[in-house]
Amino acid sequence: MGIARLASSHSDYTTAARLQVDFNNEYGWPAPDPDELSTHLARLGDAGDTRVWLVEHADAGVVGHGIVRYRPQSLVDELEGYLAELYVKPEHRYQRLGTVLLQAILDDARALGATYFDLNTSESDDDRAARALYERFGFDCHEGRGSGPRAIYYELDL
Amino acid sequence: MGIARLASSHSDYTTAARLQVDFNNEYGWPAPDPDELSTHLARLGDAGDTRVWLVEHADAGVVGHGIVRYRPQSLVDELEGYLAELYVKPEHRYQRLGTVLLQAILDDARALGATYFDLNTSESDDDRAARALYERFGFDCHEGRGSGPRAIYYELDL
Repeated sequence: MGIARLASSHSDYTTAARLQVDFNNEYGWPAPDPDELSTHLARLGDAGDTRVWLVEHADAGVVGHGIVRYRPQSLVDELEGYLAELYVKPEHRYQRLGTVLLQAILDDARALGATYFDLNTSESDDDRAARALYERFGFDCHEGRGSGPRAIYYELDL
Repeated sequence: MGIARLASSHSDYTTAARLQVDFNNEYGWPAPDPDELSTHLARLGDAGDTRVWLVEHADAGVVGHGIVRYRPQSLVDELEGYLAELYVKPEHRYQRLGTVLLQAILDDARALGATYFDLNTSESDDDRAARALYERFGFDCHEGRGSGPRAIYYELDL
């Protein structure tokens, strides 16, 4: 088991940045510079719209992180959360650390008054465990929820 | 053909709110109260992170709208845009008004310095024309872009 907590110190943001670099490298995506990312995450955290989470394993220390963004919803004056990143180191998967992390994130979202939460992932086999995790918490990828056509996510680099 | 422009007046936000109600009704989603939505959109617009767009048909006036949200990206200190809503009234579809609207939105995003843009839609037949529009502008729904597994979108009501 593990414990999830909010990043709050320079050291915490540095830890989160290093985990994010590991995450990007594992997926073969361009990795940010860890020092620049640490500074960026601390600035976002201070600005108040971003919450960076860490999950600690009892023996191994911090082995995962999450990055959550908040803003007012477009159509109603209520908060929405977006799970921008969620990562647990490969050697610590299948130990319920993702569950601990996501439970803490969603408890916090509700405590902040958020009424909606979203994220994107993929149909890749690499994301099978992540999709199962999201679905256990009630996340739904069908338009209108529960059935019907799949909701899909489009990106454009400008 | 049509002309796209930013909403800037009380009247513009009221027009956008009414179009959004039409949009939600067409898809069978709960529709916001148009007066409350108009006030909410104006407040978001004033706060500076949201840009509401209108598209005018030469004869019929405003027949569509878009709502775009901006924030700093999670991993780099660059702006990202999110297309929260895009709508053209049914009787004015297939007249390139969506193209005019999205071109204006993406030109504006680049002018603001955004380097990334995303949106979600669905595999529904109802969204076929929308997906074709996004793909013409280069939006990609595959993880890593261009091939590979489909990127999917998950939602949770808290």
